Amino acid sequence: MEESNVEFREWLELLDECKYAQLKEEINEENAANLAEFFEEVPEEKRLLVFRLLTKDNAAETFSYMDSDMQEDILNSVTDNEVQTIINELSVDDAVDFLGELPANVITRILKNVDEDRRKIINRFLNYPEDSAGSIMTIEFMELHWDYTVGKAMELIRKTGIDKETIYSCYVVDSRRKLVGMVSLRTLLLSKDDENVSDIMEDDVIFVRTLDDQEDIANIFKKYNLIALPVVDNEQRLVGIITVDDIVDVIEEENTEDIEKMSALLPSEDEYLKTSVFHLAKNRIVWLLVLMISGTLSSAIISGYDEVLSSSVLLAAFIPILMDTGGNAGSQSSTLIIRGMAVGEIELSDVLSVIWKELRVGVICGIILSLVNFIRILVLGGTPVMVNLTVSLSLCITVIISKSIGCLLPMAARKLHFDPAIMAGPLITTVVDSVSLVVFFNVAKMFVL
Amino acid sequence: MEESNVEFREWLELLDECKYAQLKEEINEENAANLAEFFEEVPEEKRLLVFRLLTKDNAAETFSYMDSDMQEDILNSVTDNEVQTIINELSVDDAVDFLGELPANVITRILKNVDEDRRKIINRFLNYPEDSAGSIMTIEFMELHWDYTVGKAMELIRKTGIDKETIYSCYVVDSRRKLVGMVSLRTLLLSKDDENVSDIMEDDVIFVRTLDDQEDIANIFKKYNLIALPVVDNEQRLVGIITVDDIVDVIEEENTEDIEKMSALLPSEDEYLKTSVFHLAKNRIVWLLVLMISGTLSSAIISGYDEVLSSSVLLAAFIPILMDTGGNAGSQSSTLIIRGMAVGEIELSDVLSVIWKELRVGVICGIILSLVNFIRILVLGGTPVMVNLTVSLSLCITVIISKSIGCLLPMAARKLHFDPAIMAGPLITTVVDSVSLVVFFNVAKMFVL
Repeated sequence: MEESNVEFREWLELLDECKYAQLKEEINEENAANLAEFFEEVPEEKRLLVFRLLTKDNAAETFSYMDSDMQEDILNSVTDNEVQTIINELSVDDAVDFLGELPANVITRILKNVDEDRRKIINRFLNYPEDSAGSIMTIEFMELHWDYTVGKAMELIRKTGIDKETIYSCYVVDSRRKLVGMVSLRTLLLSKDDENVSDIMEDDVIFVRTLDDQEDIANIFKKYNLIALPVVDNEQRLVGIITVDDIVDVIEEENTEDIEKMSALLPSEDEYLKTSVFHLAKNRIVWLLVLMISGTLSSAIISGYDEVLSSSVLLAAFIPILMDTGGNAGSQSSTLIIRGMAVGEIELSDVLSVIWKELRVGVICGIILSLVNFIRILVLGGTPVMVNLTVSLSLCITVIISKSIGCLLPMAARKLHFDPAIMAGPLITTVVDSVSLVVFFNVAKMFVL
Repeated sequence: MEESNVEFREWLELLDECKYAQLKEEINEENAANLAEFFEEVPEEKRLLVFRLLTKDNAAETFSYMDSDMQEDILNSVTDNEVQTIINELSVDDAVDFLGELPANVITRILKNVDEDRRKIINRFLNYPEDSAGSIMTIEFMELHWDYTVGKAMELIRKTGIDKETIYSCYVVDSRRKLVGMVSLRTLLLSKDDENVSDIMEDDVIFVRTLDDQEDIANIFKKYNLIALPVVDNEQRLVGIITVDDIVDVIEEENTEDIEKMSALLPSEDEYLKTSVFHLAKNRIVWLLVLMISGTLSSAIISGYDEVLSSSVLLAAFIPILMDTGGNAGSQSSTLIIRGMAVGEIELSDVLSVIWKELRVGVICGIILSLVNFIRILVLGGTPVMVNLTVSLSLCITVIISKSIGCLLPMAARKLHFDPAIMAGPLITTVVDSVSLVVFFNVAKMFVL
């Protein structure tokens, strides 16, 4: 991958020396993903110049790999005619991806310059809910009629295949455009020209509907190892396909979202370095406030037991260890359950076996931790044995309860149709904190007072 | 997807009624992923019977979709002859996946039954390090010689394509089997029969080496939207390909690993429900112990400031809020940075702009949080204003410091070639705890004493 950097430097030199013909030749041979990267290094005032050196095809493809800031930059500086060319050359799903990020008035201005047919399609796409099959599908798919012969199908593929997102999976429809089957290019190639497509096609084809959620679709791709998946409307008519390269992005996006939610962040699709400080702060402050205010409960508990604390200020020194260990133990459990549900390994119906498992894991971890803790405090010295007993026993009970809460919270959230990652990730610490403090002070009352 | 459950019930009935001929016909028409699921529902004593109803091809493919427990079950009950058939029918990467999970002596027993050539290949694969390109590649790829014509290439694809993992990307080698180019089936189809493969091939082909790490490979797939990627050895000879469906699994696996590490768990590839209680406890106790023992520091700090605490026991009530808010603020930052580095959006060279960003975000969040906190304590009443000031000021300072540590820890870990997810996720709370306590008590000394 290091080579491309050397290349970039050479091109920047060519640009400085105004050797445009040579630069044009060289960049038009590079792949679009690398070219989009190259544009990041071109000085802003020269970007348009370099972009215009690209052929029509290359310009549109490179454009589709750029990030949205760069895309807006380019579109703002080119002529209306050029806008039209780019949007027309982009595949519909790439155009929609890009337009979806823009404010409505800019979209209207851009769409003015686009062919009417295409404008209609793009508008329909922009209306699909975010994260639905409709919003990520492409309409450039290979459609065959069920009464075609293999020969006719191959002829059609040769003629129109160049514009399709993939020609490796072809979808078979009946006279009313209803999806009736799928045939791979491999099967077509290995069949005789006079065979009927309907005889060799797979008729038990897996499909999704326009409003299906992208996370479920990603799970279907994973389960069946698919390259592409057809999308149908309410009347079972074929309206698009989703290809695996888009699904790779979906998986990454959904994972990032889950990770962010579990760390008490509002999910964001923007790159960190390109997000403004104000926006970053906004995404964080909501949960920080909620969690801080819910921490009032912990404070109230500690205040409520102040006679215990006054009688032995030493106890306060063990509050952090107890709360942190409980929090860690609980979030270990909730993480495993949230992740297991997200990838489809754990169902709601597994709730009993999950609790039974966590209880036993909690007992094992609780006993080991409290034993080690007891020895640790003993070795360090200076702590009365009854205080040590209080801390160690509380630790054991807290770990067992935390593990149980840690598995129950995300499953309860799922049951109530809340997002487990949001409900359980950030909230678990708050809940466990209160529980561990109540346990601690009550054990202390028995042992120390 | 609901349909399959209905189907499963019908099949189980056929099985109960001993209608094997009908069952055989029906299950052999089902796809392998669903069949593997069906086997989960077949009573254990009848699994072998049902498995033997499958044709050779279907048996091997269904086998490849089963989880490893089921695979071992099946292999333990079939004859040596059947073992041989299954392993020979499996694609090499599936066979290796499966064998890699077994103890060495079982592998030896199974490989005894396999053709010598295949045994050699499998053995070579088993020696590639886990998570390397070699361990996930397949050798069933379409290889073309650089002096072929398109006609000859298409003939070869028609003849041998059936056994290849994909025929949609064909790889071009020279006389010494060195990789010199790639040509898609689409391009071949759209070219004339007498053209030379070397004239139409893409010669600037992206490739990886056998020992490259799977996470880097996944990033290459994402960047270039690939369906397949060739793997070469040290002499640049083509030895295998990696297809996107395997990469989807890699991405999911790597994400799960990162999420687990960030939640203080040892990463595990096993499904939660199939992992033993003892094993689950083992994966959790290590970090729980480390974090608990490192919590000694917090205890020591609190004990060290006991004259402050004794003078106002009330202060203890605010320790949880302070520590939790600091921990949450820090882990928000570390999560964004760890994730950003994992998906390649943030580089080490961005360290200055990251710190500058986090400092400003920290100031905004810190000021808002401490203002809200001040009002909260004021409204609840019962707390002297100097204690309130102490808590609120400490909160602001803690949040700013936590955000800075939260971004620095993962980047320092990466710099030192440690895993950021392990280093920064679990450790951040411990570090932030100590910092927040020191800040708190020192502010308290100024304001309260």
